[in-house]
Amino acid sequence: MNTWQAIAKSKQESLRAAIPSEWIIPAHILPPEHQTDVTSFPRQSGWFTNRELEILSTSAPRILAHLETRSWTSEEVTKVFCKAAAAAHQLILFDEAIARAKELDDHLRKTGKPKGPFHGLPISLKDNFNIIGKDSTVGFTSLVNDPATYNSTLTDLLLQGGAVLYVKTNVPTAMMIAETVNNVFGRTVNPLNRKLTSGGSSGGESALISFGASRIGVGTDIGSDPLYPIASIFTLRPSFGRFPNFQTRSGLAGQEAVNSVNGPMASTLEEITFYSKTVIDQEPWVNDPKCLPIPWRPAEPKHRLKLAVMWNDGIVTPTPPVTRALKETVDRLRKAGHEVIDWKPTGHKEARQLLQRKFVADGGKSVRGLLAPTGEPFREEMRDYEKATELGVHEMWQIHLERNTLQKDYLHRWNASGIDGILCPTTPYSSVEHGKFAYVGYTGVFNILDYSAVSFPCGVKASKALDVSYHGHKALSDVDARIQHDCTLPHSYSSKSPQIDRTNIRILDNASAVDGMPVSLQLVARRLEEEKVLMMTGVVLQAVSTGWKSKL
Amino acid sequence: MNTWQAIAKSKQESLRAAIPSEWIIPAHILPPEHQTDVTSFPRQSGWFTNRELEILSTSAPRILAHLETRSWTSEEVTKVFCKAAAAAHQLILFDEAIARAKELDDHLRKTGKPKGPFHGLPISLKDNFNIIGKDSTVGFTSLVNDPATYNSTLTDLLLQGGAVLYVKTNVPTAMMIAETVNNVFGRTVNPLNRKLTSGGSSGGESALISFGASRIGVGTDIGSDPLYPIASIFTLRPSFGRFPNFQTRSGLAGQEAVNSVNGPMASTLEEITFYSKTVIDQEPWVNDPKCLPIPWRPAEPKHRLKLAVMWNDGIVTPTPPVTRALKETVDRLRKAGHEVIDWKPTGHKEARQLLQRKFVADGGKSVRGLLAPTGEPFREEMRDYEKATELGVHEMWQIHLERNTLQKDYLHRWNASGIDGILCPTTPYSSVEHGKFAYVGYTGVFNILDYSAVSFPCGVKASKALDVSYHGHKALSDVDARIQHDCTLPHSYSSKSPQIDRTNIRILDNASAVDGMPVSLQLVARRLEEEKVLMMTGVVLQAVSTGWKSKL
Repeated sequence: MNTWQAIAKSKQESLRAAIPSEWIIPAHILPPEHQTDVTSFPRQSGWFTNRELEILSTSAPRILAHLETRSWTSEEVTKVFCKAAAAAHQLILFDEAIARAKELDDHLRKTGKPKGPFHGLPISLKDNFNIIGKDSTVGFTSLVNDPATYNSTLTDLLLQGGAVLYVKTNVPTAMMIAETVNNVFGRTVNPLNRKLTSGGSSGGESALISFGASRIGVGTDIGSDPLYPIASIFTLRPSFGRFPNFQTRSGLAGQEAVNSVNGPMASTLEEITFYSKTVIDQEPWVNDPKCLPIPWRPAEPKHRLKLAVMWNDGIVTPTPPVTRALKETVDRLRKAGHEVIDWKPTGHKEARQLLQRKFVADGGKSVRGLLAPTGEPFREEMRDYEKATELGVHEMWQIHLERNTLQKDYLHRWNASGIDGILCPTTPYSSVEHGKFAYVGYTGVFNILDYSAVSFPCGVKASKALDVSYHGHKALSDVDARIQHDCTLPHSYSSKSPQIDRTNIRILDNASAVDGMPVSLQLVARRLEEEKVLMMTGVVLQAVSTGWKSKL
Repeated sequence: MNTWQAIAKSKQESLRAAIPSEWIIPAHILPPEHQTDVTSFPRQSGWFTNRELEILSTSAPRILAHLETRSWTSEEVTKVFCKAAAAAHQLILFDEAIARAKELDDHLRKTGKPKGPFHGLPISLKDNFNIIGKDSTVGFTSLVNDPATYNSTLTDLLLQGGAVLYVKTNVPTAMMIAETVNNVFGRTVNPLNRKLTSGGSSGGESALISFGASRIGVGTDIGSDPLYPIASIFTLRPSFGRFPNFQTRSGLAGQEAVNSVNGPMASTLEEITFYSKTVIDQEPWVNDPKCLPIPWRPAEPKHRLKLAVMWNDGIVTPTPPVTRALKETVDRLRKAGHEVIDWKPTGHKEARQLLQRKFVADGGKSVRGLLAPTGEPFREEMRDYEKATELGVHEMWQIHLERNTLQKDYLHRWNASGIDGILCPTTPYSSVEHGKFAYVGYTGVFNILDYSAVSFPCGVKASKALDVSYHGHKALSDVDARIQHDCTLPHSYSSKSPQIDRTNIRILDNASAVDGMPVSLQLVARRLEEEKVLMMTGVVLQAVSTGWKSKL
């Protein structure tokens, strides 16, 4: 066995060993392998008490109210979320978390005052946030047993605010794959359907929240790794500088041509809004040199929005469930009195090319440098990094200029249109089978532009019956043709598309594969309009609300 | 004659030809060559009427009040500033400016309403701001006769605000020399003493304002080209994103590891504050994708400041007049009840090295590409660009990380100290003879940190009698030894400094050379604290005010 494989095996074993024996689920109640949706497990297995289930399904602000009035303790709440996380099988900080919860409970008992606005609330963090004494491997075996010697700025802020950090969640290698898979921990699957991806790079968070083992988690986003993978949850992609992101671990450290950001992920809009306001109210700019001194600016609901809808980005056609979700949402918005115009994807091709060039601009040296110490190979999904040629700084400066021009042109087009926001797909998929997540351009463009965006479950679910494939679809690009092949019924293939080597394409019935999966859409506002995009999401949900999973 | 020389000659001729004959100063009233201080010319030559002199010496807000009440017209005001600028011999837009002034006057006459908050006020711009139809050569012969096809964002904002843009001012080649000299227009001198430099890269603005031919000008700053050259004027160095800087011309286009910023320059604190508030009130972030949506936040005067004073930056000792100015200012601050502690220059050496590496990171390709078309040679001051080796992107990413660590450490040290601001030199000089400006580290560090800073005349003037050189001074660095040689009396030289090749050092009596020159100091606040640093400057001036040139 090679070094890197031994390291991974040992890390996985220590991870399993860290789960207290009382939380090891007995084999006879484990869901059988053929059961794809495991989100019903907490409620139906009998493994959780009714009291535990009540806590898991209570929204974060209401949990905080229970804690403050001491009808619940942080210790109890934290143990429940640890148990649920153990069930979801994640990286774990259980002992410390419960000890901290007890301290917070003591503090409240003695002083009568909560430690801060997150007092006693378990919050889950993506693996790249540093916590002193804990590994942040970002999926590299070379970073196993290299515990952080300092906290990320956000870690400090959450701890000062009274949060209980109880779990770090899995990421793809270098956080640069759109599915959550690496050589240390393996693959994180989608608890709604274990045959489908949990997305990436924040797929660990997505899975944990979808499973119900976290109320609020923090994910990150840089363009090839949307914050928004599993379509049953809400995520906010803020503009750079709104939330603290300092001293986190990165697979491409020092890359700043497009900045990584972090934002909240939760089951409800209420909870991502609560988190956003609470973090900003802590004035993160005082300690994070990259944070902007912009206080929370309440946005009054606007009764008549002017939105643009982008049906496709000129590169990839959304799969049928997503197109149907867009149509149904637009119909309901119009019925509710909102104005919806069409939006052309001008500049999106250029944005995609810019992203691709930026991430590999160092010739893959950063990734190679993290693989080399243990002889870990490049994963198949990282071939672009392996093959890349390093650019010189002069060429990088020209890329900056192209990006700046794109930003200016897009902003001026937006201003000229008078729109409040853009409604568009989050990804081309409702969900997708492992290994098939092929396109992140719908979110990537807004990383290049640094716009604020919310991904939200729009209430539509993929349906084998309704989502017939596009007859005679003409591929917009190579990747479009591949996705249409992978994700729609066989007869959708347009044989007129000359670029495709058909021999390598597996024709699968993906409409069946994703049947019943929720569909997320994306609502976008301009740079640093986080309050506005959260407000607009509420207005949109109100307009189209029937049968939403979460109360607003 | 080579191409580039012919282009320069022709450009200079067309510039001279653009001055209307009635503004060509008759030879018999021109100051004689040996007269170094020409700032007295407007008042003593008889070339300006009393009415013209009254207009030139009126502050911008009061000029605007005169224009709004129509006791003066913009046409009259603009003509006076054009005439003064012609006397100062700058790049000129006289015809269009006067035509625009007339239009604005007509508008006010007809509607009774000013066009905007800058209605009718002549404002001067540094050469790199684009104005449609005008050259922005930034000192390259290859850019002569290459008029801008679009306006800079700031140009548009000022025009929409009603300003009259009447002059573009000279810069050094690529704006990357600390004195204002290039192969197109030659050298801009200091009107207070023509043997001394006007600084750079905003030396054209400095000279114009010091001469009295502009009330408010806009300069830029990127680290090797302080906004703050001539010590008789006030300048604000804002943090990146506070003022619009889009679509300006750069010598190092696309270089973003340290961002260029622009800010106001004027004879009074009142005027740079007025400009700052007025520009921000125009919401520049709507049209400039890099601008931050931070409205003007009034800062109440703080009656007891806690300031840190940095006597030197560990690399270069300020020349004697500057050290004396610091001492006198600190004494007066303490007497006025403010707390002043000492500040260590931790991180300043690293900041300097970072700046030096960043600017030449493209191996000088950008500058070379602008010199090549006309065969223009590298100027002596640009040797570092000629000799540089291009870095790869991976190394650049490591530089970003070093800078980020520096930013964090500096901020945390600041926070721990509890200070409101840092008082320090703007440059090591009161002023300095042409060709001797050797060090920009006192401003450069705050470019790396992206802090807000004001440079202000502190009321102290260099004095041959008072500013005796440092006996037995031990050089802090090679550049310190050179500066002490160039700028203090001969006997100040510490022969113990081994690094210096004495054969290349001219020992000059610079204490005589700068006798009578005003001394500027720098007051620094953290990132995006423009309102606070302007407020603090007012408090400092009040504490130390006796005999200030300008009323506050």
